[in-house]
Amino acid sequence: MLSRNRMLIRSLVSSSVPCTRNFSGTAPPPRQVLKTGDTLRQTRIFTNEDVTAYSKASHDSNPLHFDSEFARNAGFEDRLVHGMLVAALFPRIIASHFPGAVYVSQSLHYKSPVYIGDAVIGEVQATNIRENKSRYIVKFSTKCFKNDKLLVIDGEAVAILPNLAAEKVNVMD
Amino acid sequence: MLSRNRMLIRSLVSSSVPCTRNFSGTAPPPRQVLKTGDTLRQTRIFTNEDVTAYSKASHDSNPLHFDSEFARNAGFEDRLVHGMLVAALFPRIIASHFPGAVYVSQSLHYKSPVYIGDAVIGEVQATNIRENKSRYIVKFSTKCFKNDKLLVIDGEAVAILPNLAAEKVNVMD
Repeated sequence: MLSRNRMLIRSLVSSSVPCTRNFSGTAPPPRQVLKTGDTLRQTRIFTNEDVTAYSKASHDSNPLHFDSEFARNAGFEDRLVHGMLVAALFPRIIASHFPGAVYVSQSLHYKSPVYIGDAVIGEVQATNIRENKSRYIVKFSTKCFKNDKLLVIDGEAVAILPNLAAEKVNVMD
Repeated sequence: MLSRNRMLIRSLVSSSVPCTRNFSGTAPPPRQVLKTGDTLRQTRIFTNEDVTAYSKASHDSNPLHFDSEFARNAGFEDRLVHGMLVAALFPRIIASHFPGAVYVSQSLHYKSPVYIGDAVIGEVQATNIRENKSRYIVKFSTKCFKNDKLLVIDGEAVAILPNLAAEKVNVMD
């Protein structure tokens, strides 16, 4: 899984992001520097095991996530993935590019349900970057989509980044 | 753990919440009906195991949650609990009282860090209740505190509740 995810992640930072200058001939590969307008994306398919694991961690056992009949009676197609588990894509995307990122705020508007097996694309776009005491306060537009263009979560996040140079990514997959 | 948590949860719905009328002599215990101003609370102590479990479920492996030295160098006392894990108290509180609750929106402002071992009180207060097509659209003020009165998360949530009568609670502890 790791190599597949690394491939995915290599394509995350918008190709318009310039490389930092590399001052040493033997230095590690150049990093990409975040600028306003850049978009980072990651895709995740939520499984039944993910929903169970999240429920154990969060102690959220709403029957909408575990009982298909209950979910259908409530007007859904089937069991739902927890909205906060889907929304967790946003800090994951930010922290996997900028380890040490500190979350300041997040707004979440749930627009469409996410079902087990759905492939969800999480997308965070830097809309404002401000330097403050050698750190960077970055506002992101945060959206999740499924089925190509169906918006499932819309919102905004503000995070403090230790720097704007994206780290080589090593996510836990 | 279950009996302890049940005891905690029995004290959750504000004592000012009136009971519904009980029309049958053999009916189950009367339920409490949510009204504007009512507050629901639950307490949780976040452990190292909780942070690990949440990280596996969310794939969020920010070193602030796993590396004490890294966290201290970033200005914190020690490793942080994921903000979204703490915020998961809100849907948990709502859904444990109103199974089938559907989240519409949530705003989160992170005010103070939560460390492993901190006892966090999650509090949701109904600020507006509106009936719509036999369901109830409820706006909640959502806050988390630690150390008695230190605000750690502030925000608002909107959820659609199937009814306003709080269920007997059976949380996953």
